[in-house]
Amino acid sequence: MAATSSGEHMTRNSDKALVVGLAGFGTVGGGLVRLLQENADLVRLRTGRDIRLKKVLVRNVTKARAAQLPPGTELVTDPHALTDDPEIDVLVELIGGMDHARALIDRALDQGKHIVTANKALLAEEGLELFQKAARKKRILRYEASVAGAIPIVEALKESLTGNRVGSLMGILNGTSNYILSEMTTNGVEFDVALKQAQRLGYAEADPTLDIDGHDAAHKLVLLIRLAYGVHYPYTALSVRGIRGLSGLDIRMARELGYRIKLIARVRQAPGGSDGQIRLEAGVFPALVHHTYLLARVGGVYNAVRVEANAAGALFFHGRGAGDLPTAGAVLGDLLAVARDEHPNNTGFALKELPKASIVPPEERRSCYYVRVMVEDAPGVLRDLSGCMAAEGISMAQVIQKGDEGNGVPLVFMTHETSARAMRDALQRTMDAGLLREPAVYFRVLGGDQEK
Amino acid sequence: MAATSSGEHMTRNSDKALVVGLAGFGTVGGGLVRLLQENADLVRLRTGRDIRLKKVLVRNVTKARAAQLPPGTELVTDPHALTDDPEIDVLVELIGGMDHARALIDRALDQGKHIVTANKALLAEEGLELFQKAARKKRILRYEASVAGAIPIVEALKESLTGNRVGSLMGILNGTSNYILSEMTTNGVEFDVALKQAQRLGYAEADPTLDIDGHDAAHKLVLLIRLAYGVHYPYTALSVRGIRGLSGLDIRMARELGYRIKLIARVRQAPGGSDGQIRLEAGVFPALVHHTYLLARVGGVYNAVRVEANAAGALFFHGRGAGDLPTAGAVLGDLLAVARDEHPNNTGFALKELPKASIVPPEERRSCYYVRVMVEDAPGVLRDLSGCMAAEGISMAQVIQKGDEGNGVPLVFMTHETSARAMRDALQRTMDAGLLREPAVYFRVLGGDQEK
Repeated sequence: MAATSSGEHMTRNSDKALVVGLAGFGTVGGGLVRLLQENADLVRLRTGRDIRLKKVLVRNVTKARAAQLPPGTELVTDPHALTDDPEIDVLVELIGGMDHARALIDRALDQGKHIVTANKALLAEEGLELFQKAARKKRILRYEASVAGAIPIVEALKESLTGNRVGSLMGILNGTSNYILSEMTTNGVEFDVALKQAQRLGYAEADPTLDIDGHDAAHKLVLLIRLAYGVHYPYTALSVRGIRGLSGLDIRMARELGYRIKLIARVRQAPGGSDGQIRLEAGVFPALVHHTYLLARVGGVYNAVRVEANAAGALFFHGRGAGDLPTAGAVLGDLLAVARDEHPNNTGFALKELPKASIVPPEERRSCYYVRVMVEDAPGVLRDLSGCMAAEGISMAQVIQKGDEGNGVPLVFMTHETSARAMRDALQRTMDAGLLREPAVYFRVLGGDQEK
Repeated sequence: MAATSSGEHMTRNSDKALVVGLAGFGTVGGGLVRLLQENADLVRLRTGRDIRLKKVLVRNVTKARAAQLPPGTELVTDPHALTDDPEIDVLVELIGGMDHARALIDRALDQGKHIVTANKALLAEEGLELFQKAARKKRILRYEASVAGAIPIVEALKESLTGNRVGSLMGILNGTSNYILSEMTTNGVEFDVALKQAQRLGYAEADPTLDIDGHDAAHKLVLLIRLAYGVHYPYTALSVRGIRGLSGLDIRMARELGYRIKLIARVRQAPGGSDGQIRLEAGVFPALVHHTYLLARVGGVYNAVRVEANAAGALFFHGRGAGDLPTAGAVLGDLLAVARDEHPNNTGFALKELPKASIVPPEERRSCYYVRVMVEDAPGVLRDLSGCMAAEGISMAQVIQKGDEGNGVPLVFMTHETSARAMRDALQRTMDAGLLREPAVYFRVLGGDQEK
């Protein structure tokens, strides 16, 4: 018995491709198609299998699309061509909305498919039934892309933070609203102007209701509550207030008081649950966030989640909340998990023996540098120093000179990008020329000109 | 056949407790013992099983300890009493160090146990052999606690970000060094003073070599490289520079230039790998980080990791990197994963039907408030307003009054904590009293007095 089940296991993971049917070929669907091709080697390394995209369900087969389908992938318009294809292992649902998506997922579960979806609205409003059905059918239902795009908060709550009791969770879960608030804060524009700009840039829909009135964040919050507390919190019970019509005056006043206004989705455990029932306070609302909070620093279309838990203390996650590739990357991560469906997964790669990395020799590393030297306060010193640097091809970006510190004058300069070897050789030149009172101090610079 | 294996599955997860042997009863071990008891109900909810701590391996049975063992847990001094106990399913290795820990894990794997460890040094220097052995024995080897404490970066790289190709990863992985640098930056003290203070507070060992010379961060970096790229990067090939003797002068100069000095562990993919081999540049070094980076804002003993990936873009994780409960929480999360070892895990909880949350009515929610009203510029208005607030038990924390904006004078005040009902009723009073030119604007405040 043990041998047989282990044999099955080896087969499952060795060569048979995981066959995927994709519903929806919009922004995220296109991103997924692209990533499946770009990261195909990684998929094999991580899972020991290929992921093969067999069919893509679209409304219109002839519409032009940005992403190129791989050879052998078929466009179909009949949902059953996808859900009822016995070769397909997983349905990736990226059409969004309620009824059609629900029917598609129900049918696919009935046909024994696993499900990967990014549909927060459906999981928030009808998740109870969907999870029950998936459990009954013993199928995997994954949804990392449904909350906070590229931030792996679903997996974190479901798998990593399970040793914790979550006290509270708050997040900036809607990038459109955060973009509008950031614009109002940084550029002092009013709400309507910021909204129009978001629409122009494609960050907001023509009808922005779902985003700016808080419903999108509320959908995501329902999923996070379920993951953090293991309870059903009906979407309709959530108190939701958006940012529509927020005044620039309040943003300015808040700033004066040391705060930023953010659209916050929050849940926290409240005292007083009876019978061991978990009592929760949850809602979506614009709030003043003190500038010392990392949450106050979340700008533009970024998302962030702050979890306060009894073992971990405060944890903060920050990343892109939307966009084709960030969301598609989360979907692909879910597909890999389905493809792997294997234990143990100790290294995160399918290889039994990991290959050796090719290593860049330390002296070839390139960086901007901060250099401090102690020199004599004499004419020509800076010229001679610059000469030593230039001789190794190093150019200076910025120079600061200070008063005498007793052991000479500190001279600090930032360089443009150069190699560690060039820096070492240039400093040797300055030593040889007798320019330095003591050995130079130098550090690499991150966020300098080359990384901006 | 299918029925049998599904039957096994149900048995495994329904009632039999996962039996744990713990090696090491220090800070983290004590934290784990405490969490196992405090979070026992959650463990059952999440996995459908209990986790039973059967034996704890210590050097001295009679030593006094902070954590209370649950009834039935046995202290043992003979390693084989733990590794060879057929009832024990998992060894939790928290003794640290190299040789003893290695012997213990080897023996436990030989005896068919799964392993959960926080031992970064061992996994960095001898991980290659350990992972191979675990693969051969088909055992789970988990190590979330070994890097960045409470931050779930191991799981994120191993499971969540697998749809991504990692371009670079940089982290603040050593809390001791970051504490010292933060003290030097914030309080202007020199290195030796900050180190002594870290030692006094228990953040640094009597011999701080491992922390301040970068070796601890380097160990963790080797694990992250393995997880991100699936390659073996020998620990000895890593270029490592610590922060010992760093001068306050450089910290001040860096600040003037808009940077903070941080001890950074970084790996990035370099061009030029031959034969599809991955070419990497990796090292630990103090660096100037521009103040606009979230990494520059990581203070005290906190850790953080920034991942730049081809689909996700930039992701940032922040949390406690050490300490009894943060680390123990990560260990417990690993134990739950072993206890669960089950698919599918859609909701993160073992229940087929989630219970309903008990919901705090919106009007009972308590918060500090920002309130803006437009009033007439007349004597007594502030007094009358305060009266309306006081009548509902609301006290004001701060008041700002501005010049006339055309439709009245904006008067902004921040309140101490109060309920939504009291706020609504107080504002109704101000309306009834004819004090307001237009309806009040109000927001909740996060990071106000009650949450500092």
